[in-house]
Amino acid sequence: MNPEALTVVLDGQWAELRREVRKQLSENAYDEPRDLSTEDYRVWVLDQLHKLAKTGQPRLGFAREYGGGGDIGGSVVSFELLGLGDLSLMVKSGVQWGLFGGAVQLLGTKQHHERYLSRIMDLDLPGCFAMTETGHGSDVQHLRTTATYDPETRQFVIDTPDPSARKDYIGNAARDGRMAVVFAQLVTGGESRGVHAFLVPIRNELGEPLPGVEIGDCGRKGGLNGVDNGRLTFRSVRVPREALLNRYGDVAEDGTYSSPIESDGRRFFTMLGTLIRGRISVAGAATSAAERALALAVRYGEQRRQFNAPGDAEEVVVLDYRAHQRKLLPAIAKTYALHFAQEELVRKLHEIQSAEEEVDEHSQRELESRAAGIKAMATWHATKTIQTAREACGGAGYLAANVLTVLKADTDVFTTFEGDNTVLLQLVAKGLLTNYRDHFSDLSPLAMARFVAEQVVETVIERTAARKVIERLVDAAPGRDDDGVLFDRGWQVALFEDREKHVLEGCARRLRRAAEGDPFEAFNDAQDHVLSAARVHVDRVVLEAFVAAIERCEDDEARGVLNQLCDLYVLSNLEEDRAWFLEHGRLTASRAKSVIAAVNELCAKLRPDARLLVDAFAIPEPFLRAEMLG
Amino acid sequence: MNPEALTVVLDGQWAELRREVRKQLSENAYDEPRDLSTEDYRVWVLDQLHKLAKTGQPRLGFAREYGGGGDIGGSVVSFELLGLGDLSLMVKSGVQWGLFGGAVQLLGTKQHHERYLSRIMDLDLPGCFAMTETGHGSDVQHLRTTATYDPETRQFVIDTPDPSARKDYIGNAARDGRMAVVFAQLVTGGESRGVHAFLVPIRNELGEPLPGVEIGDCGRKGGLNGVDNGRLTFRSVRVPREALLNRYGDVAEDGTYSSPIESDGRRFFTMLGTLIRGRISVAGAATSAAERALALAVRYGEQRRQFNAPGDAEEVVVLDYRAHQRKLLPAIAKTYALHFAQEELVRKLHEIQSAEEEVDEHSQRELESRAAGIKAMATWHATKTIQTAREACGGAGYLAANVLTVLKADTDVFTTFEGDNTVLLQLVAKGLLTNYRDHFSDLSPLAMARFVAEQVVETVIERTAARKVIERLVDAAPGRDDDGVLFDRGWQVALFEDREKHVLEGCARRLRRAAEGDPFEAFNDAQDHVLSAARVHVDRVVLEAFVAAIERCEDDEARGVLNQLCDLYVLSNLEEDRAWFLEHGRLTASRAKSVIAAVNELCAKLRPDARLLVDAFAIPEPFLRAEMLG
Ligand SMILES: Cc1cc2nc3c(=O)[nH]c(=O)nc-3n(C[C@H](O)[C@H](O)[C@H](O)COP(=O)(O)OP(=O)(O)OC[C@H]3O[C@@H](n4cnc5c(N)ncnc54)[C@H](O)[C@@H]3O)c2cc1C
Ligand SMILES: Cc1cc2nc3c(=O)[nH]c(=O)nc-3n(C[C@H](O)[C@H](O)[C@H](O)COP(=O)(O)OP(=O)(O)OC[C@H]3O[C@@H](n4cnc5c(N)ncnc54)[C@H](O)[C@@H]3O)c2cc1C
Repeated sequence: MNPEALTVVLDGQWAELRREVRKQLSENAYDEPRDLSTEDYRVWVLDQLHKLAKTGQPRLGFAREYGGGGDIGGSVVSFELLGLGDLSLMVKSGVQWGLFGGAVQLLGTKQHHERYLSRIMDLDLPGCFAMTETGHGSDVQHLRTTATYDPETRQFVIDTPDPSARKDYIGNAARDGRMAVVFAQLVTGGESRGVHAFLVPIRNELGEPLPGVEIGDCGRKGGLNGVDNGRLTFRSVRVPREALLNRYGDVAEDGTYSSPIESDGRRFFTMLGTLIRGRISVAGAATSAAERALALAVRYGEQRRQFNAPGDAEEVVVLDYRAHQRKLLPAIAKTYALHFAQEELVRKLHEIQSAEEEVDEHSQRELESRAAGIKAMATWHATKTIQTAREACGGAGYLAANVLTVLKADTDVFTTFEGDNTVLLQLVAKGLLTNYRDHFSDLSPLAMARFVAEQVVETVIERTAARKVIERLVDAAPGRDDDGVLFDRGWQVALFEDREKHVLEGCARRLRRAAEGDPFEAFNDAQDHVLSAARVHVDRVVLEAFVAAIERCEDDEARGVLNQLCDLYVLSNLEEDRAWFLEHGRLTASRAKSVIAAVNELCAKLRPDARLLVDAFAIPEPFLRAEMLG
Repeated sequence: MNPEALTVVLDGQWAELRREVRKQLSENAYDEPRDLSTEDYRVWVLDQLHKLAKTGQPRLGFAREYGGGGDIGGSVVSFELLGLGDLSLMVKSGVQWGLFGGAVQLLGTKQHHERYLSRIMDLDLPGCFAMTETGHGSDVQHLRTTATYDPETRQFVIDTPDPSARKDYIGNAARDGRMAVVFAQLVTGGESRGVHAFLVPIRNELGEPLPGVEIGDCGRKGGLNGVDNGRLTFRSVRVPREALLNRYGDVAEDGTYSSPIESDGRRFFTMLGTLIRGRISVAGAATSAAERALALAVRYGEQRRQFNAPGDAEEVVVLDYRAHQRKLLPAIAKTYALHFAQEELVRKLHEIQSAEEEVDEHSQRELESRAAGIKAMATWHATKTIQTAREACGGAGYLAANVLTVLKADTDVFTTFEGDNTVLLQLVAKGLLTNYRDHFSDLSPLAMARFVAEQVVETVIERTAARKVIERLVDAAPGRDDDGVLFDRGWQVALFEDREKHVLEGCARRLRRAAEGDPFEAFNDAQDHVLSAARVHVDRVVLEAFVAAIERCEDDEARGVLNQLCDLYVLSNLEEDRAWFLEHGRLTASRAKSVIAAVNELCAKLRPDARLLVDAFAIPEPFLRAEMLG
C-alpha cells in the first residue's frame, strides 16, 4: 500500500500548502547544528530566520492589505511543519511572527499595522512578546509592570516596580530584539485599567539597550538554545501615547480611558483569546516532533536485531517484540488522533478568525477551551513519546547524531510555555462546568469553586466534529454484549461520551456540595477530579476528530488501516483508564481483560504497517537522517 | 522535627561513610560546569577525576592487599553519592574504577592485580570497559570481536571482523583511555570458547592510538558530555597470553583451554554476574539524582506563589495545590522506598561478595535478579521524577541555572546502560519463573518459553528483608472489611504478595499452555504479562525494604512520618494498578475509589512535612544552589 493515501487524510484542508512547505523544507534542509556554543547557535538561527523571511511563508497569517497572505489556518499549518526541523528556529519564528507580529496585528489598530507590519514580516524589525514576569507566569492577570499615562507629555511611562515584575524568559530579548510588545497595567488619572499591551523599543540600531532598559540573559536552557531568551527591566521608560496597542482600550490625549469592553478582566481575557494562535501552533509543533521521533524509532526498530529466536539463525528484529510494539504502536495511534484533532482545531480557528462578522462568545470560548485542551494533551504526548522513542533506540538513541535527545530537550518546555498544562486543563474543565458562561477565561482556577456553586450546571456533551456521522454511529451501537463491541465505533464513542458526562457531573456535584465551606479547600480537594474531567473531555474530542478523518478518507485500503488505528487509539485509552470503567460499572472484569488482549492483538496486526504509518507523515528525508540508520 | 532522625534511617549501614563523603563533596563542591564545549567539559571532568583519585574514595572497593579499602558495600555507597553532583564525573569514575578496575580485579588473577590495580586506583592508568558492540548491546553473549590464540608467538590476536563488531559507546575511549578490557570470543585450536575479557593497550603515553587500533568518537550525546564515549576497531592487534583475564578460563602456552566452569554460556554469565556492582551503582545514582530533583522542586514549590485564593490577599503557594502535591509527594514516597531497597541490595551484595566461602548459586542469582529489577525500577523512576520536577518548576525549571534539565539529560541513559530496562525485567521474570534454576542468566528472553515449558514451576514468594516482622504483620492482618484495612501494613504486604503470586502463576500457565506451538510466538504473546510479573515482584521487594527500614527506626516521630510515607507508597502503587485488583476481585469498586481518596488525604497530611522529607536526604547545600531559589 502506498502511504500517499494516508498522507492525503493527514494533510487535510491545507494539503497543498503542506506539500509546498515540505518541499521548501527539504530543499533548504534547515538542519540541526550540533555542538555549537550558545552564541554560535543563536547566530545560526538568526541567519536561518532571515532565510525563512525570504520565503514569504511568515507572511501567510497577516492581512492582505499589508502584504500578508490572509490565510490564518495556513500560517498555523506552516508553523507546525517547522516543528519537523530545528525547533529553535521554529520557536524563534513563532516569537517574531506569531507572538510579536500577531500581537501588533490583533491588538493594534491601523496606525500600528501601517507602521510596523511590513517591517515585522521582513524581519527588518525583530521583536519580543513580553508578557511573563519573574513573579507571574500562569497568572498573567496579575502582572506588575506599570504603564502610567502622563498627560503633560502625552506619554506612557513604563516601569518595573520591583524585581518580581521583571519580564522573564522573553524570546528574542537577550540578543536580537529591537522592540517589545510589553504587557503592563495601564494606569491613567490615578486609576488602573488592567493589563494592556505597549510597543516599547528596547535596542537601538546598533543593538545596544536603550536608556532605562536593562536587558539580562536567561543563559543556557534545557534546549532551544538557538533562541535568545532574556529579561527586561524598565526604569521610567517613556513611550508615546500611540505605543498603546489600542484595539481593545484607548487613552485620549487628556488621559480619558475608553474601551468597547467594560470589565477590566473580561477585556484582558478577550485580548488573550485573540492571541490563541501561538498556543495552537505549539500543539501542532509538538505533534510534528512526535511524528519525527516515531518515524526515527520505527525505522530503527525495523532494522535493529537483537537475540536469537530459538531455532532461527537470524536474530529477531526488535520491532517484532510485542513489548517494543506496545511502546511504539499505541503512540502512533494517538499521534494520528492528535494530528486529526489539531487539523480540526486549525480549521475552526480559521473559520472563527476569518469570519466577516463578530463571532458569538460561546464559539470563541469553546475554541479557546479546545485549544487549551489539545495543547496540553499534545505536548504531554510529545514529551512521553519522544522519551519512549529514545529508549526504544537503546544506546544509539542517546547520541545527538540520532536526533532523539535533541528533540526531547527542545520540546520539553512545550508543556510549560504558551500556558502550563496543569493550568490549561483547569481552564478546560472550567469551561465545561460553566458551559462557557461568563468569566470563562479568568485563568484563576480558584474562581471556579465559586462559579460552580452559583450555577446549576447542566453538562452538555457538544459534539465537535462529524456530528451527523457520530450520531448515526452511536445510534446504531449494538446493544449486544460480546467482546465484538470493543471494536464497534458507535459503542466506543458512546463509552467516551458517557465517561465524560459522568466525570463532569460528579465533579460539579462535588464542588457544589463542598462550596459551603472554604472555597479554596473545596476546590483544592477536588482538583484531581477537575483535571480528570478535562482529560476525558479532550479524549472524546480527539476521538471525534479521528472518526471525522476516517469519514473523509476515500481510499478503501487506507480507511481499513485507519479504522484499526482508531481502534488502537480507543482501546489503549480504555486500557489505561480501565480502572475507572470498572469502578463505575461500565466494564466487567472479563471485558476489561479482553481490552488488554485486544491491544496486544491490534499491535500484532498493525506491526506490518508500522513503516507505512510513519511514512505517511511525509517527513522530508533530510529530517530523518541519523547515524544509526546508516 | 529534626530531619536528622530520618537521615539516620536513610543512611543505614554505611552511615558514617555517607557523612564523610557528603562532607568531602560539599567542600570540593564538584559543581556542574554549564555551557562548556564538549572538549572543555571533558578536560574539566578529567581534572576532577584526578582530584577524586586523591581522596582515596575510589580505593574503597579494591582488595586491601593492593592498597584498597576492602569495603565493597562502601564503594557502591560512595559512588551513589557522587550521583548528587556532576553526573559525567560520576559516570567517568564508574568507568575507571567500577567497570575497568572492577573487571581487572574480579576477572583477573594475581598477576593482573599486582601489575595494574595500584595504577588504576591512582588514575595513572586510565582505562575502558569495552563490551558493547555496534551490533550487540543487550545480547552480549553474541559479541563478534575475536581473540584468537597464536601458540607460535604465545599471543592473542584481537580482531574486529566486521563493522557491527566495532566496540561502541565505550566510556573513556574517545580521549583519555590508555587500556581497555576488551570482551571477545576466545578462539584457540580453531575452537571458540565463548566470550572472555582481555587487557588491550589502546594508546601510548602520548595519547596516540596504538598500531591496529582505530578509535572513533561518539560525539555529542543527550547528556553526560563530560564523558568521552568512543568506538574501537581492532586490526590484528597482538597482546601477550597474559592479557587474558584468566580467573574463569585460561589458555596454556600450547593453546590448551581450561576453565573451572564447563559450559561456555554458564561461564560467561558467571563472569557477568561478578560484574554486578556497576548495575547496582547506577540504580543508586539514579535515586540520588531523583532525590536532588525532588529537593529542588519542593524548595521551589514552597516559595513559589501563583493565583489568589478568593478572599486571601496573599497568593497561594503552589505546593498547597493538591495537583502539585500529587506530582511530588507520591514521588518522594517511592524515592524513599527505592532508597531503602537500594540499601538492602548493597548490604546483600556486600555480604555475598565479601563472603569467605563460595556462595550458593541460588543466592548469587537471586542477588543478580534483585539488582536487575531494582536498577530497572529505580532508573525509570528517576527519569519520570526528574521530568515531573522540571515541569513542577514551570519556566524556571527549563533554565540550566536551575539544574533540573541537566539532571534530566544526564540520567536519561540510565534506563539503557548497565542493561536495557525492558531486557532486565525479563531477566527478573525468568529468575522467578524458573526459581533461579539453570541458565537463569541466559539473557535471551526467548529461551524462557522453553524453560517454562520444561519445568513445573512452583512460584515461591521469598521474603527478602525483615522476614520475621513481615510474617508477624501478615499473620496479624485484619480479616475485617472496612476502609481502615487500607492503612494496615500486614494487609498491604499480603496484597502485594498475593498480586505477585497470581501474576506469576498466570504467566507460567500461559507460557506452558502456549509452549506447544512456536516458542517465539508463545513467549512474545505473553511478553507484556512477563514484564508485569517482574514489576509487581520488584514492587513487593521494595515494600519489604520499606517495612524493614521502619522497623529499625528508633525515633518515634520519625517512625510516624515513615509510616505515613510508606502508606503513600503503597496506596499510590495500588491506585496506579487498581484495574488489576478490580479485575481479579481483590478490591471492590468502592474500595478502589477509597484508595484514590486515601492518596489525596495522605498528600494533604504529608504536605507540611514535604521540606522535612527532602531535607532528610541530607544533600550538600552546594548541590541545591539554583537561581530560582534566590
Ligand atoms: C524557553 C521559554 C520561552 C518563553 N518565552 C516567552 C516569551 O517569549 N514571552 C513570554 O511572555 N513568556 C515566555 N515564557 C514564559 C512562559 O510562558 C511561562 O514560563 C509559563 O507561562 C509558566 O509560567 P511560570 O514559569 O511562571 O510557572 P508557574 O505559573 O509559576 O507554575 C509553576 C508550577 O506551579 C503549578 N501551578 C501553578 N498554578 C497552579 C494551580 N492553580 N494549580 C495547580 N498547579 C499550579 C504549575 O503547574 C507549574 O508546575 C517562556 C518560558 C520559557 C521557559
Ligand atoms: C552513554 C553511554 C555509555 C555507555 N558506556 C558503555 C561502556 O563504557 N562500555 C560498554 O561496554 N558499553 C557501554 N554502553 C553501551 C550500553 O551498555 C548499551 O547501549 C546497552 O546495553 C543497550 O544495548 P543497545 O544499545 O545495543 O540496545 P539494544 O539491545 O539494541 O536495544 C534496543 C531496543 O530494543 C529493545 N529490545 C532488545 N531486546 C529486546 C527483547 N528481547 N524484548 C523486547 N525488547 C527488546 C530494547 O528494550 C531497546 O529499547 C554505553 C552506552 C551509552 C549510551
